[in-house]
Amino acid sequence: MSSDHADAIHYAHQNPAQFIQHLKEFIQIPSVSTDPNHTGDMDRATRWLSEQLHRIGIVNSRIIRTGGHPVVYAEQLSAGPAAPVVLIYGHYDVQPAEPLNLWQSDPFNPEQRGDNLYGRGSSDMKGQIMATLDAVESVSRNGGLPVNLKFLFEGEEEIGSPSLEQVITENKHLLKTDLALNPDAGMIAPDTPSIVYALRGLAYFELRVFGPTQDLHSGMYGGVIHNPAQALSELIAGMHNADGSIALPGYYDKVKLLSAEEKEALSRLPIDNDFYIHQTGVPALWGEKSYTPVERTGARPTLEINGMESGFTGSGSKTIIPAWAMAKISMRLVPEQDPQDVERQLRQYLIERAPSTIRWELKSMAGGPASLTPRDTPGVVALSRAIESVWGKPPLFKREGGSIPVVVQMKKILGIDSVLTGFGLPDDNVHGPNEKLHLPTWSRGIDALIHFFYNIAETYPFPHVSERSNL
Amino acid sequence: MSSDHADAIHYAHQNPAQFIQHLKEFIQIPSVSTDPNHTGDMDRATRWLSEQLHRIGIVNSRIIRTGGHPVVYAEQLSAGPAAPVVLIYGHYDVQPAEPLNLWQSDPFNPEQRGDNLYGRGSSDMKGQIMATLDAVESVSRNGGLPVNLKFLFEGEEEIGSPSLEQVITENKHLLKTDLALNPDAGMIAPDTPSIVYALRGLAYFELRVFGPTQDLHSGMYGGVIHNPAQALSELIAGMHNADGSIALPGYYDKVKLLSAEEKEALSRLPIDNDFYIHQTGVPALWGEKSYTPVERTGARPTLEINGMESGFTGSGSKTIIPAWAMAKISMRLVPEQDPQDVERQLRQYLIERAPSTIRWELKSMAGGPASLTPRDTPGVVALSRAIESVWGKPPLFKREGGSIPVVVQMKKILGIDSVLTGFGLPDDNVHGPNEKLHLPTWSRGIDALIHFFYNIAETYPFPHVSERSNL
Repeated sequence: MSSDHADAIHYAHQNPAQFIQHLKEFIQIPSVSTDPNHTGDMDRATRWLSEQLHRIGIVNSRIIRTGGHPVVYAEQLSAGPAAPVVLIYGHYDVQPAEPLNLWQSDPFNPEQRGDNLYGRGSSDMKGQIMATLDAVESVSRNGGLPVNLKFLFEGEEEIGSPSLEQVITENKHLLKTDLALNPDAGMIAPDTPSIVYALRGLAYFELRVFGPTQDLHSGMYGGVIHNPAQALSELIAGMHNADGSIALPGYYDKVKLLSAEEKEALSRLPIDNDFYIHQTGVPALWGEKSYTPVERTGARPTLEINGMESGFTGSGSKTIIPAWAMAKISMRLVPEQDPQDVERQLRQYLIERAPSTIRWELKSMAGGPASLTPRDTPGVVALSRAIESVWGKPPLFKREGGSIPVVVQMKKILGIDSVLTGFGLPDDNVHGPNEKLHLPTWSRGIDALIHFFYNIAETYPFPHVSERSNL
Repeated sequence: MSSDHADAIHYAHQNPAQFIQHLKEFIQIPSVSTDPNHTGDMDRATRWLSEQLHRIGIVNSRIIRTGGHPVVYAEQLSAGPAAPVVLIYGHYDVQPAEPLNLWQSDPFNPEQRGDNLYGRGSSDMKGQIMATLDAVESVSRNGGLPVNLKFLFEGEEEIGSPSLEQVITENKHLLKTDLALNPDAGMIAPDTPSIVYALRGLAYFELRVFGPTQDLHSGMYGGVIHNPAQALSELIAGMHNADGSIALPGYYDKVKLLSAEEKEALSRLPIDNDFYIHQTGVPALWGEKSYTPVERTGARPTLEINGMESGFTGSGSKTIIPAWAMAKISMRLVPEQDPQDVERQLRQYLIERAPSTIRWELKSMAGGPASLTPRDTPGVVALSRAIESVWGKPPLFKREGGSIPVVVQMKKILGIDSVLTGFGLPDDNVHGPNEKLHLPTWSRGIDALIHFFYNIAETYPFPHVSERSNL
C-alpha cells in the first residue's frame, strides 16, 4: 500500500461524523421522482450534489436537462492520459415514503438508532452515492486521484429511467470511459462481502383474453361459453411445466447451462431455502428442482404473473361470465436471451395453445436484455481485491435476479462493462417503510471504494480511452 | 272469454303510455342492493311500490324490515274464500350499472329507442313487476279480481336474498297461498313464447390464494416463489376436464341424466349453436360435447369464474410477485345437487390439488339448490293457456340456467309451486350495460298475465287455502 493510499484510509477513519452529516443532509431533500409535488426538490438535490462535488474538488460539473428530472454530470481528469477513466453512476431520486404511519421516524429527517441510520434513500441509494463521494474525497485530499473520474447522477431510476438512454446516447462522446462503477447493488450480510456480476433482463407483457362482447349472466350462458378468466387461467397454467420450467416453445434454446466452476462459486453464497422462506413468509419454496434457489433467482430465466384482472372483484357476489380477462406477465431473462425472441416465443405459445373459443391480444410493455460483467475483467478484479483488503476475505460472486437497465445501456451505447457494488443489506427495507443503512458496513464500503480507486489505477490494462475532457 | 276479461284486455291496450311511464319512474330509483350508498334508494323503491299498489287498489300493504333491505308485502283478498290465492313475487333491487361508460344512455334515466326501453332493471325485473301490476290493474278495474292476491317484493335478490328465507319463515302464516307467480324468468324470442319449469341452483365462493406476506420484487425472488396468481390459475385450470366436465371429486354423483322424452322436448326449442354465438359474440361455443347447448345451459351443472384479481392491474408495468390472488367462483346446480355437497367437493378438490407452496382460503358467499315445477301443475297449465291466447301458439317448455332461490324457499317453507314467467328476452343484457326491455313483447306479456288471472280462477282445483287475511 502506498503512503497516499494509507493516508486516504486514515482520512476516512478520522471523518465518520462528517460523512454521516453529509448523508443526512442529502436524505433531508425529499427527491421523490414519481411525485410532481417534489419537482422543486429534484432541482435542490442536483444543486446540493453539484456543491458536494465542488467541495471534494470535482469542480467541473453541469446539469443536463431532460424531458423529466435533470441529470448531474461532473468530471475530474487530473490523473492524466495514462490513467483509466471511471464513470461513476448513481441516482439521486428515491421511492415515495408512504405509508408514513409505518415509519418510526420521519423518512426525510434521518435518525440514527444504534448502528443504523433510518431515512428514505439511506440505502437506496443516497448512502451509496455518498460512500463513493466520501471515498473520492479521501483519495483526492491525500495525494490526489490516481484515476480519472466522470460522474453521472440521474433522477429517474425509481420511475424506470425514461430519459437516461437518450442522455447517454446524446452524450456518448462526453461519457467515453473505460469502465463504469455502479454502487446500486448490495451485499448479502455485514460479514459476507459479495459482488454482483450478472443481472437478469426483463420482458414485460399484457395479455388480454376476450370472450363474449360483454359480461354475461352466468346462469343463462354458463355451459356454452368459454369463460375468459378460465381460459386465461388455462393459458397461464400451461406456461410452466410440472418441473417448474417454462413451457414456451424454444424458451431455453439459447440459455446456457452454468459451468461447474460457476455453480460451485454460487453454492458458496450463504443463501439457502430458509433464507428465502424467512425473507418472504411463504410456506414452502417453489421452482426448478434441478437448480438451487440462488441459481433459480440469478442464473435461470423466470416467468411471473405480476397482476391479473377479470370480471367482478368487489365484495359480495355477482354472477357474471366476464367479457375479458387480463394478466400482466413478465419474464426475467438470462444473458443469452433476447427480449424480442421471448416475445416471439410467448406469441407462438399463444398461437399454439389458445383455443378457438376466445380471442387474445398480447401487448409488449417493456424489455431489456440481461447483463453480465465477467468476473475476470479488470474492474471486478480491482473491486474484489479492495473488498478482500477490508473484510479480510474474498467476496462471494452473485448473480442478481433484478434488472438494472443502465448497465445494459452503458454496455450497448458506451461499450463499457459496469462494476456493480454497494453496501446495502437485504433487510434495509429499500422501497419500504423504515429504510435504513447499516453504518458499520457503510464505513467498510467507503474503505473498499478507496482501495478500489487505487487498485484500478494499478491494474487497468492499457490503452485507455484517448478522449479526456469533453465538458 | 267473459265480458270482464275482454274489458281488461281492452283496458291494457288503451294504456300503454301510462304503463311505460310508471315503469320509467320505477327505473329512475337506483335501487342497487349491493351498494351501501344506495340504502336510501332502497327505501324510496319500497315507498314507491307501496304507492303503486295503493293506486291500483291494493290498499293493504306493509313494509317488513329485515337485517338488510326491506320487503314490501301487500294483499287483496276480495275474490272471496272460493277463489285461489296467488302469491306474486318480485324483487325491486337491481344489479350495479357499472361500467357506466359502456351505457349509451343513463342507466337510471330510462330512454326509449325504437321498440326498446333502456335502463338498469328494465328487464330484470322492474319491467316484469310492472307488467304484473299493470295486469292486476287492468283486471281489477274491469269487474274486479277473480283471484286473491298476495304480494312479496324483496330488495336483495341480486345479492343472493340473504334475508328472504327468514322473512318467509317468520311470515309463513301471512304468506299462506295456493301457488306463486314469479315473473323473474324470460322468453326465448318475441315470437317464441316459453315457460321455464326448471331453474339451476347456485353455489358461490371466493377463493384466495396467499403466497408471500407482501408483494415481492419479481427480480429478487422470481424463481423460488410460487406466484399466487399462477397457483390460482393452475387451480382454476384444473377445475374442468378436457371434455368440459367439472373435475371436482364426486361432482356428478347425484346428477341425473335427462329422460329421452325431456331431451326431445328440449330439442324443440329454437336454440342452437348459432343462437348462442349471435347472442354473445364469442368466436365459438365451448362446453360438454355430449350435450346440446340447451341441455348444457339448463340441465347440466356448470362452474364459472365470475371475477379474478391479483397484483398490479393499472396501466404500465410493475414488476412484483403479488402477495395474493383471488377468484370469485360460482356453480350452477341441477335439481339433484346440494349446495353444501358441492362446497365440500370444492374444498376437497383444493385439499387434494393445492400445492404446499401457497396457502388458501375458501369463503362460501351464497347458495341454493335448483328447482323444478312439474309441467302439468294447474298454475303452469293456466299460464300455458294464457300464453297461447296471446301468441296463438302453445309455449315451449324450457329449463332455465339461472337460479331463483325464492322458488326453492317457497316450495320448502310454504309448500307451494312457483309458476315462472316473464317477458324479458335473451338479448336484454340483464346484469350488463345497456339493459333493455322489448316493449312489444312486454305488452303481450301484460295481456298474458291478464289471461292468467282469469284462467287460474277458473281452473284451480279445490280446496284452496283456508286462511285469508293475515295482515
